Amino acid sequence: MSPPSVVIIGCGFGGLWAAQGLARAPVGVTVIDRTNHHLFTPLLYQVATAGLSAPSISAPIRHILEGQKNATVLLGEVKQILPGEKKLLLEDGTPVTYDYLVVASGTTNNYFGNDAWAPFAPGLKTLEDALDIRSRILLAFERAEREADPARRSACLTFVVIGGGATGVELAGTLAEIARHTLKGEFRRVDPTRARVMLVEGTDRVLPPYTPDLSEKARLQLERLGVTVWLNKRVTSVDAGGVTLGAERLEASTVIWAAGVASSPLGRSLGAPLDRAGRVQVGPDLSVPGHPEIFVVGDLAGVAGVPGIAPAAKQMGRHAALNIRKTLEGKSRIAFRYRDYGQLATIGRNAAVAMLGRLHLSGYPAWLTWLVAHIYFLINFRNRLAVLIDWAWSYWTYNRGARIIIKGPS
Amino acid sequence: MSPPSVVIIGCGFGGLWAAQGLARAPVGVTVIDRTNHHLFTPLLYQVATAGLSAPSISAPIRHILEGQKNATVLLGEVKQILPGEKKLLLEDGTPVTYDYLVVASGTTNNYFGNDAWAPFAPGLKTLEDALDIRSRILLAFERAEREADPARRSACLTFVVIGGGATGVELAGTLAEIARHTLKGEFRRVDPTRARVMLVEGTDRVLPPYTPDLSEKARLQLERLGVTVWLNKRVTSVDAGGVTLGAERLEASTVIWAAGVASSPLGRSLGAPLDRAGRVQVGPDLSVPGHPEIFVVGDLAGVAGVPGIAPAAKQMGRHAALNIRKTLEGKSRIAFRYRDYGQLATIGRNAAVAMLGRLHLSGYPAWLTWLVAHIYFLINFRNRLAVLIDWAWSYWTYNRGARIIIKGPS
Repeated sequence: MSPPSVVIIGCGFGGLWAAQGLARAPVGVTVIDRTNHHLFTPLLYQVATAGLSAPSISAPIRHILEGQKNATVLLGEVKQILPGEKKLLLEDGTPVTYDYLVVASGTTNNYFGNDAWAPFAPGLKTLEDALDIRSRILLAFERAEREADPARRSACLTFVVIGGGATGVELAGTLAEIARHTLKGEFRRVDPTRARVMLVEGTDRVLPPYTPDLSEKARLQLERLGVTVWLNKRVTSVDAGGVTLGAERLEASTVIWAAGVASSPLGRSLGAPLDRAGRVQVGPDLSVPGHPEIFVVGDLAGVAGVPGIAPAAKQMGRHAALNIRKTLEGKSRIAFRYRDYGQLATIGRNAAVAMLGRLHLSGYPAWLTWLVAHIYFLINFRNRLAVLIDWAWSYWTYNRGARIIIKGPS
Repeated sequence: MSPPSVVIIGCGFGGLWAAQGLARAPVGVTVIDRTNHHLFTPLLYQVATAGLSAPSISAPIRHILEGQKNATVLLGEVKQILPGEKKLLLEDGTPVTYDYLVVASGTTNNYFGNDAWAPFAPGLKTLEDALDIRSRILLAFERAEREADPARRSACLTFVVIGGGATGVELAGTLAEIARHTLKGEFRRVDPTRARVMLVEGTDRVLPPYTPDLSEKARLQLERLGVTVWLNKRVTSVDAGGVTLGAERLEASTVIWAAGVASSPLGRSLGAPLDRAGRVQVGPDLSVPGHPEIFVVGDLAGVAGVPGIAPAAKQMGRHAALNIRKTLEGKSRIAFRYRDYGQLATIGRNAAVAMLGRLHLSGYPAWLTWLVAHIYFLINFRNRLAVLIDWAWSYWTYNRGARIIIKGPS
């Protein structure tokens, strides 16, 4: 008799930690991901802003799991889950059966019903997104250098980031640094330091999950870097020429969407209740109500008080693996408890905020904490040394090593 | 009165060396390139075979020329040269006038009249090509792991490289290493070490520009790495399923074209005589007959006895700049003389051939020479340290750092 099969959908932090949590369990593990790599998403904004190369924050899933002999890796996209038949279908109709299923497929960009905005305001979820955004940013400066019309040139040099969460803050801060420092002196007809970077947020402060004092410190640091922060502004339309916010209009050739995430369509196909953010409401053991063999972990899982960040996804992935092992051993499952090690958001050079329990840091101390934490977590990646060199080099020279547009003008 | 304008088309080795050769000349230099980066093309095959990341072998042209105050960089594609009007047109019709023109636009892939083969057998000229080939190679192994049909699985694990020049030899050797070493043990259903790598060459030896003894040594080293070398074989058809060579058929899902290069269409628009390989036949001063203000340098220039390699392009670029300076000073131009520092081709780990004047090396000594030479020349790049680390790591672990497929299955 073959061992019970555990299928894991998605190999982000939740899926990978679930797979590794089953390394010594008497099961066959199948990991299915749309890409061939695990992505260190906390640094994805660095790829989008040309600070790091794509391979620096990616590792082949096969290579990570090479030594785990009970694990098989499949490159594929799960199109449908059939909970009644304990089966799922890949993009070409190939069926994959399971005894236990861990859904860790994460979130997608949420345009709040305005999917027509997507081509003009890409979101940042995958490496492909990051390289697309990188090209748009660099091409905007290139187009400005060739543009004779002052209004169009000004639109080329206007960058709008929609959404003041961690991703939006990181992108806006880094964009301002690129314009003010990295590209300074490299153009002959335009002055990149005069580029405008706007961060638009619908609520009354940036970084809403943080405390108000840290939100205010983040805003001040952003403005010091040259970012214009617009609070309480709702986007009413995005098109090829820019962004409309009610009565106001921003002509901008580069718009980036960091305003919201929606659960992956797979979440809905489970038939389980969703919370307001579209996440699957799971039981205390992280399984789907009525389907104890299906677990949901990571950003797709709705657990009160658990933020959508990498450490939470890892903890959930590991916990789902634990509960599968308990079930196989005939023991009772354990309720998930989130351990809060804090949250960090970087804004730019020497600028960040950190909320570590009751300890609130901002500026250089927060930035140093962010740096040490990320280097520590990157140690799982073989690329940590390359990342360190890139960072040290960027820090001292203000340059960025991955300023490469793959496609030419189109 | 504004200084004479020198327009340089293309910022490869020829164009960049021409631009830098005019740094202190009383001219305005405009460099036009389709991409925003200068590319270290001798290592492009390493990007295609997942050994290096794209930014590691690329540097932004603007950044290289930032300090050269008489140089302006434009991202754009030259669609037409109008020699009679001393003018050229960019892709959107923008005119650019010149007093002197340096055409360094290089070569494109040559399918010998069979452009329909191009989608099935991409060539390796740009970073985009390299990332496309990388995806095809890695996806072939992924598809094999999911493929149930033995014949189709075998086609997924068959790689055909067409053309036994330096690029073909480098690609085939590295592909064999990936299959035999890098991917070994990472798959559960297929054995990547059983992949077939075929190198198809139309003449009776690989590396035709080298001496016959080195060609033979290269062939032996390729076969030792596991490459099947087919000599005197002409490709009669390439399609989605594989390659036909007269009566023979190779079912292969990955085919790479390294068989021939054709001069860029701009070469033809000059109205100058072309040689058999389609290169522009230039005078001894590297200018186009009848147009002393137009120079052609690099792979596009046909000069007897000068190979299409980076050192030759650099020498020609520098020489065109020299002759422009001489002309401005009212002095007579100097005839170009190629300095032959030798040729090197790498085949794989500890395997290479080198032709350094009368000194012929192969195996480990040639490989070491190749390594030292490339590290030396990469010193112009800020990325040399990252490349060194990647190489050292690959050498000791047999792994490759850039095994990232950007796009998922499609």
